[in-house]
Amino acid sequence: MLTYKNEFPQNLISKNAILIFDRRFDKLAWVKKFPQRYGVKPGERLKNVEEFPKHIKKILKLSEALPRQDLVIVTLGGGSIGDFGGFIASILKRGVKLIHIPSTWLAAIDSAHGGKNGLNVSKVKNQIGTFYFPQQIILVRKVLESQPQERVLEALGEVYKTALLNAKLWKQIHAIKKLNTEVYWNNLPLMIDTKMAIVKKDPFETKGIRYFLNLGHTMGHVWESQFKLPHGISVLFGLSFAIEWSFHRKIMDSKTYYQIRLSGLGSYLPDQFDLRRIIKQTKNPRRLLFQDKKIASNKKIRFVFLEKIGKPMVQRISITDLEKELLRQSR
Amino acid sequence: MLTYKNEFPQNLISKNAILIFDRRFDKLAWVKKFPQRYGVKPGERLKNVEEFPKHIKKILKLSEALPRQDLVIVTLGGGSIGDFGGFIASILKRGVKLIHIPSTWLAAIDSAHGGKNGLNVSKVKNQIGTFYFPQQIILVRKVLESQPQERVLEALGEVYKTALLNAKLWKQIHAIKKLNTEVYWNNLPLMIDTKMAIVKKDPFETKGIRYFLNLGHTMGHVWESQFKLPHGISVLFGLSFAIEWSFHRKIMDSKTYYQIRLSGLGSYLPDQFDLRRIIKQTKNPRRLLFQDKKIASNKKIRFVFLEKIGKPMVQRISITDLEKELLRQSR
Repeated sequence: MLTYKNEFPQNLISKNAILIFDRRFDKLAWVKKFPQRYGVKPGERLKNVEEFPKHIKKILKLSEALPRQDLVIVTLGGGSIGDFGGFIASILKRGVKLIHIPSTWLAAIDSAHGGKNGLNVSKVKNQIGTFYFPQQIILVRKVLESQPQERVLEALGEVYKTALLNAKLWKQIHAIKKLNTEVYWNNLPLMIDTKMAIVKKDPFETKGIRYFLNLGHTMGHVWESQFKLPHGISVLFGLSFAIEWSFHRKIMDSKTYYQIRLSGLGSYLPDQFDLRRIIKQTKNPRRLLFQDKKIASNKKIRFVFLEKIGKPMVQRISITDLEKELLRQSR
Repeated sequence: MLTYKNEFPQNLISKNAILIFDRRFDKLAWVKKFPQRYGVKPGERLKNVEEFPKHIKKILKLSEALPRQDLVIVTLGGGSIGDFGGFIASILKRGVKLIHIPSTWLAAIDSAHGGKNGLNVSKVKNQIGTFYFPQQIILVRKVLESQPQERVLEALGEVYKTALLNAKLWKQIHAIKKLNTEVYWNNLPLMIDTKMAIVKKDPFETKGIRYFLNLGHTMGHVWESQFKLPHGISVLFGLSFAIEWSFHRKIMDSKTYYQIRLSGLGSYLPDQFDLRRIIKQTKNPRRLLFQDKKIASNKKIRFVFLEKIGKPMVQRISITDLEKELLRQSR
């Protein structure tokens, strides 16, 4: 269940709730009202499996007197806290109720939805985790709008990707030259619908449909881990790369290509010169790709191309093909 | 899917399988044929969450080159290995296929079935885990029959409990004075059916039906942790305690009571004198009960009584009631 609120919902505060929250909300009156709460520092370190035994011990201590069937984990935070708290909820006493309150645009638009969670092993992201759907996701306008401008930019990649996956959403926002929190808030329902329509067709990622959501992510992840760029920014580069390749491979026609490149929103997309620069600095993409979970077999990977706006297409390509395309785009 | 075999199935050996196995099978030709294998020492330590990061790193290394969608975890071992391997399968890359080959009677009769797995936190059993149903459970006669006699005894509690939960099974084995591996093997299908009929009505333990399987386990767990008795033996004591209480509370009539006590199988059940002795040595059951997951709330716990053979009944009782009954039975 998805709910939009202006303020924090008071009815979540109960004797059976454990709040797992971003420490920066420490001083919030609403946070302080929870009888059990666990403040954490957000980021990838939180998701490190080495830290997991320490966390689970403390969270179990908080849950000691609470009956399993009534226990609720409430998360308040960005993607890493949602991933961490979602995983905890899915395994604590073999699974307890879960409610997400995403505090970043990236989480509100993308990661809080779809039931995926995960921890990192040996610095590789989400190597373990579960599919575990929250009972409720609550989008609190006040929290989301209080974020600094850089968080708006960090969400850009996912916003852009979502718009490319849904013609209706694209129509609604393609002309916008300046993305801001108001545009985000007003388009949240349609962005979330876009993702969930895909997730519902393939909830456990067994049919290849959910893989469409990886548009822009194959190279996005490589650049994210190599240059420590924010997720949203590296995905923007990944999208641009995928668009170029789709066009060159004649999967995308020129009408669609220019429709994207010349749109108002197009100004946010790195252009061929930006791509050339980042590719030239990229070292050993093969190694990074193999670490990424999206490797379908030893030799081939699945890559999401874009045929039209709203029409992604997955093809199996070899790493050699990808390397050739990187070389082409770097010239 | 449940399969009975005389020998180890050769078709399980595949390039995408990871065998998690009891080290004592190290020398087995069948084991050696697995391209990826992970030998472990069975026991509660394997399930300690502190050791989990170390294990998961090694298992991920073994799975590195294997595509998630084809990966299969095969376990060969007793309850602790099934619990450990089942948990790993449920979270590795967000879930991979799972096949159990139980090597002990206890696992073959009980723990391999029903989809529960778990790890221990701060020495408390199964504080984290998932419900994750294996694709296949394979019962290999050769392995099960090669067990020493003490493993036969360790399974006794679960065999006995299962017989008390199913009138048909009881009828089939109540007259037996000497339980042995042949009796176990021949009655495996009916014992597993008994458990699975209950599990299917309440797979995720949300309806209270699955709780019937805890018959004999409330005090069984207390004695298991206090005296380090084998699970099967402490459950036998727990069953005897539950039968006495059911009779005293007039939930069970005297016909059923004597039917159990005077049966051939009855000779395996600790009698009132045995119970008196163990209760007198029991220290602070309250503390141990609170550690056990079966605490439904701060003050009340659910206790499984037996009305008739095949007819369990759950009642909420206070710890004080339980302590009074312990006192009564110790006199």
